[in-house]
Amino acid sequence: MYESYWQQMGEKTTVVIPGWQSMSYFSDVKNPCWFLEPEFAKQVVRLHNLVGNAVTEGRQIVVGTGSSQLFLAALYALAPKDASEPISVISAAPFYSSYPSMTDYLKSGLYKWAGDARSFDKEGPYIELVTSPNNPDGFVRHSMVNRTGGILVHDLAYYWPQYTPISSATDHDLTLFTVSKSTGHAGTRIGWALVKDPEVAKKMIKFIELSTIGVSRDSQLRAARILEVIINSSQNPGRPESGESFFKISHHLMAERWQLLREAVNRGRFFSLPEFQQGFCQFLNQVSQPQPGKQKFTEPLIKSCHLYNYLCNA
Amino acid sequence: MYESYWQQMGEKTTVVIPGWQSMSYFSDVKNPCWFLEPEFAKQVVRLHNLVGNAVTEGRQIVVGTGSSQLFLAALYALAPKDASEPISVISAAPFYSSYPSMTDYLKSGLYKWAGDARSFDKEGPYIELVTSPNNPDGFVRHSMVNRTGGILVHDLAYYWPQYTPISSATDHDLTLFTVSKSTGHAGTRIGWALVKDPEVAKKMIKFIELSTIGVSRDSQLRAARILEVIINSSQNPGRPESGESFFKISHHLMAERWQLLREAVNRGRFFSLPEFQQGFCQFLNQVSQPQPGKQKFTEPLIKSCHLYNYLCNA
Repeated sequence: MYESYWQQMGEKTTVVIPGWQSMSYFSDVKNPCWFLEPEFAKQVVRLHNLVGNAVTEGRQIVVGTGSSQLFLAALYALAPKDASEPISVISAAPFYSSYPSMTDYLKSGLYKWAGDARSFDKEGPYIELVTSPNNPDGFVRHSMVNRTGGILVHDLAYYWPQYTPISSATDHDLTLFTVSKSTGHAGTRIGWALVKDPEVAKKMIKFIELSTIGVSRDSQLRAARILEVIINSSQNPGRPESGESFFKISHHLMAERWQLLREAVNRGRFFSLPEFQQGFCQFLNQVSQPQPGKQKFTEPLIKSCHLYNYLCNA
Repeated sequence: MYESYWQQMGEKTTVVIPGWQSMSYFSDVKNPCWFLEPEFAKQVVRLHNLVGNAVTEGRQIVVGTGSSQLFLAALYALAPKDASEPISVISAAPFYSSYPSMTDYLKSGLYKWAGDARSFDKEGPYIELVTSPNNPDGFVRHSMVNRTGGILVHDLAYYWPQYTPISSATDHDLTLFTVSKSTGHAGTRIGWALVKDPEVAKKMIKFIELSTIGVSRDSQLRAARILEVIINSSQNPGRPESGESFFKISHHLMAERWQLLREAVNRGRFFSLPEFQQGFCQFLNQVSQPQPGKQKFTEPLIKSCHLYNYLCNA
């Protein structure tokens, strides 16, 4: 859905990579995350400061091959290494459909999927995944369990102004973001984590070393350019050199799609859509409706029949 | 060490990626490996046909975020899913120093590092890693165990004309290659596997879906361009539009470095270098010396003291 925006933005979005550039494994030997491109890190900080959706001060940025890799890196980093049994990984239903298989496909002795956070009653430590706005239903989420020994991972892939009002700068221990949802560039496979505890960050970096020896430098350079264009478009909207504000245009696009969707659903008898609570968006400086990028339809009569509509991918 | 070659090759090595290109997760929905860029796959086949180092017919190409990811994908694909204990993973010593930690860091219930293939005597199925030329010692390798239930994974990262004579086109069940060793582009994190059994390939693809939801399209496009330049440089060497043959230049560079290295070692008393058997290289069409990209020095008096010299990274 963002393709036409990027087309209109023209050449300023283009990256040019000569054959002799970025050949080494290393992006920045002075950074604990030695495979993090400094230019990408710089634009991530600028973007969060601009949008106001996350505190970046006192955080290690860890780049990953999509936020999927960072999700797995977080499980590895947070799981106790000497425990007698794997730590439980939970999330409140409905949760991202890939969480269970991603957690369990290697039958790890470090962590294990333990299902719905709402019904979780096992003693001892656990990792709770908090996806907000939630995938697949778009609701703002907070942790459900709140017990001693609980460790939280916040997946904020959709916490951007086009999808939900930006109510405050989040200040969590470990937060995941991804380019695929914020800018639409899924094919670059770039995500990032903001990590408070340097020891946790080190273990995540170790995970990425062992699984892929770093992250594509080409994609990081491209993502850096894309973020820079978005930032400029928001700071100087409408000028020829900066173009139309990405977040305003994409917010408008989502609003149009949600209006069409609500009209279509209201004309039929078989599906319903949830009502979301509006809120004040600090970034857009206006009251704004949540308009999730993904939506689960629940058929009201036959409860077992679900349809997913991927609003952003249409 | 290849950086100056790529600089000399100039603009023909450059990739230009506009902001609206390759945004989707999908590279090729008709390929079982849906995240494989068709242009990259095409150049991989052309390169193997040119060099004659591997049969590509009847193989599924699986692209990975470096060959590390493909190594893990192979373990996942080859391990029995319903076994009572993890399958043993072995390799003849000295082996690639990261094999044990890569195999065991997630404490997988599917596979487990079982050490040196030469002393492996456990009953039942196993996966043997055959690295040839070997990392770290540069010798040509074949499988050591040869027992029923044995599954082989061939890591041929260094089976290129600049490092070793190309004696024949390999025809194994599962072979790994990587751009980082063949062209020097480690930072792109692109490797590929040639896989005979479509069911094994499918499981490797599933692994990559679950761990990183595909592979950077930007890096694949860049790797495709790099391989294309190499192919053209070998087919029409010396012409202005194709440049000097990459494999001839890099073979010459390695020969120079090995000569300097042998002279330095011979002047000292503390280190020795192995003698390699020369062979006929089908690609260079001449008798050629092995000149490994990595070399382990064994100090002859104090046997426990090892030094590694990374010839290609100097």
